[in-house]
Amino acid sequence: MTGLEEVRLARAAWSRLVEPGDVVAGALVASLGPVEALAWLRSVAAEGAAGAPVAAGGLDGLVGTPASRRRLGVAVGRWAPRLATVDPARELRRVDALGGAVLIPEGPGWPGRVGDLGPSGPMCLWVRGRTDLDALTAPSVALVGARASTAYGDHVAGELAAGLSTAGWTILSGGAYGIDAMAHRGALATGGPTVAVLAGGVDRLYPAGNARLLAALVEHGAVVSEVPPGSVPSRSRFLQRNRVIAALGGATVVVEAAWRSGALSTAGHAAELLRPVGAVPGPVTSAASAGCHRLLREGRAVCVTDAAEVIELVGPAAAGPAVRTHEAREVDGLTAEGRLVLDALPLRRGGELAHLARAAGLAEHEVLAEVGHLELAGLAERDGPGWRRRRSPARGS
Amino acid sequence: MTGLEEVRLARAAWSRLVEPGDVVAGALVASLGPVEALAWLRSVAAEGAAGAPVAAGGLDGLVGTPASRRRLGVAVGRWAPRLATVDPARELRRVDALGGAVLIPEGPGWPGRVGDLGPSGPMCLWVRGRTDLDALTAPSVALVGARASTAYGDHVAGELAAGLSTAGWTILSGGAYGIDAMAHRGALATGGPTVAVLAGGVDRLYPAGNARLLAALVEHGAVVSEVPPGSVPSRSRFLQRNRVIAALGGATVVVEAAWRSGALSTAGHAAELLRPVGAVPGPVTSAASAGCHRLLREGRAVCVTDAAEVIELVGPAAAGPAVRTHEAREVDGLTAEGRLVLDALPLRRGGELAHLARAAGLAEHEVLAEVGHLELAGLAERDGPGWRRRRSPARGS
Repeated sequence: MTGLEEVRLARAAWSRLVEPGDVVAGALVASLGPVEALAWLRSVAAEGAAGAPVAAGGLDGLVGTPASRRRLGVAVGRWAPRLATVDPARELRRVDALGGAVLIPEGPGWPGRVGDLGPSGPMCLWVRGRTDLDALTAPSVALVGARASTAYGDHVAGELAAGLSTAGWTILSGGAYGIDAMAHRGALATGGPTVAVLAGGVDRLYPAGNARLLAALVEHGAVVSEVPPGSVPSRSRFLQRNRVIAALGGATVVVEAAWRSGALSTAGHAAELLRPVGAVPGPVTSAASAGCHRLLREGRAVCVTDAAEVIELVGPAAAGPAVRTHEAREVDGLTAEGRLVLDALPLRRGGELAHLARAAGLAEHEVLAEVGHLELAGLAERDGPGWRRRRSPARGS
Repeated sequence: MTGLEEVRLARAAWSRLVEPGDVVAGALVASLGPVEALAWLRSVAAEGAAGAPVAAGGLDGLVGTPASRRRLGVAVGRWAPRLATVDPARELRRVDALGGAVLIPEGPGWPGRVGDLGPSGPMCLWVRGRTDLDALTAPSVALVGARASTAYGDHVAGELAAGLSTAGWTILSGGAYGIDAMAHRGALATGGPTVAVLAGGVDRLYPAGNARLLAALVEHGAVVSEVPPGSVPSRSRFLQRNRVIAALGGATVVVEAAWRSGALSTAGHAAELLRPVGAVPGPVTSAASAGCHRLLREGRAVCVTDAAEVIELVGPAAAGPAVRTHEAREVDGLTAEGRLVLDALPLRRGGELAHLARAAGLAEHEVLAEVGHLELAGLAERDGPGWRRRRSPARGS
């Protein structure tokens, strides 16, 4: 067994021993290394010292104070009960049989930006499908939202995903019903890759109703989890899963979310990680958009309405040339005086200079100058001794 | 004629002589006083000096430099052509015959906050209906938006206006078709007062299709304009009118607006006047909401979805106690450990301590403590030698 494989086994074991987001475990592994930390845990647990103060070489920085020493003792008490059931080699064989792999920070394919999570980051990532998760998610956007989505939200999620996918962005989501599913489908529809981060093990394509969709992701992207095969998707794992989506994505966009929604926690994690957060507005009469409006109202998200605006959100540099062109109107180029004269011009019979000056509230020499500009712009024409309007553009109020 | 009536006549004359927003006229009137400024203009015009350099006592501050002297000369050239047609006494009789009045900063009923416009502010306000415009608009919100509104926008405008009106706020708008009309109607439906600021004279209830609605405003509020009776609502007057709406309102809320919309200029004026600006989101698939989303996206408006949020926007103090109550869920009070144990509890047959500790990833003594809290919270119950879940609330992801 190479050093790398030993590390992989140790990290796989740690992902079984601890619940996602365990910062004490994360700090311990970062401090001692995965293999050494596991050996240390085994030795401490063998002493039956759960809950008791612990000490070990290399832990000085971690347990420098009595409080942190107690904290580590409590943590050991949490991890130890699972030691007996840990069998990482068997679990690696299991994911291997599924055509998957375990990615680790020390090995290839690891998406470095997950490191932004610090000690609360995943011990490893169990992956089915493409294992070059670094390349796969290098330009990626997380599209998340309500499971109880509306037809409007489904439509927008699909459109955004298709637009972003076409522009070369990988779509990340959680594989759930509703917005998540539509985001994955929108990407698949354009032939683009898409990645689902699951709350349970990658052996169970949960929820069952999305099993076929998730199987398609295994073919055209990846299904990822930080918990080992066989793990159930519990409530706290759903919440912790959201931080992995937020960390993997270059930005997180909430398409539809109720006032209380897990999607808002993903947005919160993204903001903590200094990732841009977008929210898609919707009808104020729709409860499914209340969470998006909440994010906008509280200034925690930028309003995004199409793929171009999402790309602008992820990085202005990536947006390239003008994302949206609005037709310029002829009158836009006019001075204030030009507008006054334009307003003063009769539509039918030409108005004489003195009349135009009174109507516009300008001096006659000013009217003369402006009417010349308006003639050049095709907005005025001579009529007898005066001037009249020429084919007016739509009037705006 | 009292001094006040002389000032009123002079300001009425100025409102005929100059186009709305003429800062040179505003500065001149502020500097000399309306009566003296008018007398000065008459004397200068009589000398036929339009366009030529001018000088007069009391103007030193205004025309201290050659450039400002030239500027005033140009302005005189603009105002002079209209001098011959000015007859303020006749116009005052005209608005009096309509049951209206002319409000001036020096007299009663003047809404002081319009003074925030400085020299670009109105010379006077021609009013039909209630003439105590100060009291009428003291707590007021401007609801503005697209003429080409959708059924969604109409609904929201009506709901917002009714809600704000019920809470004691006067609804301001522009009397136009679409959102404006629905805002006025929503206020009238609750018996609340509402004020329309018109771009043309108050003698013409424009647009014609809203004549009955505007007549109802004369009965239950007011119709206001800074231009004298007989004035046509030109494009530039529409744009200038928007600054009066923005200045009169305690806040401006855009309900629906296309990407280019006059409502956005009202929002811009409100922002310049340091008034809060709100925007109502809508479907991203609706062009009628694109302007609102633009305001939100550019951080120029706060997202508002109901009357309570508008009131919060105008002033947190005015909002009173909690504007919105969201039901608290039992699980919200739990610690992270409590949630882990809750997740670990079986639904049917009780799980024993060792099992729960492994499932939750916690030490047994922690599970024991947490399961006690869960029992107290009614979320767990004993079952044989272990514990199980009690009536789970809806699971949130």
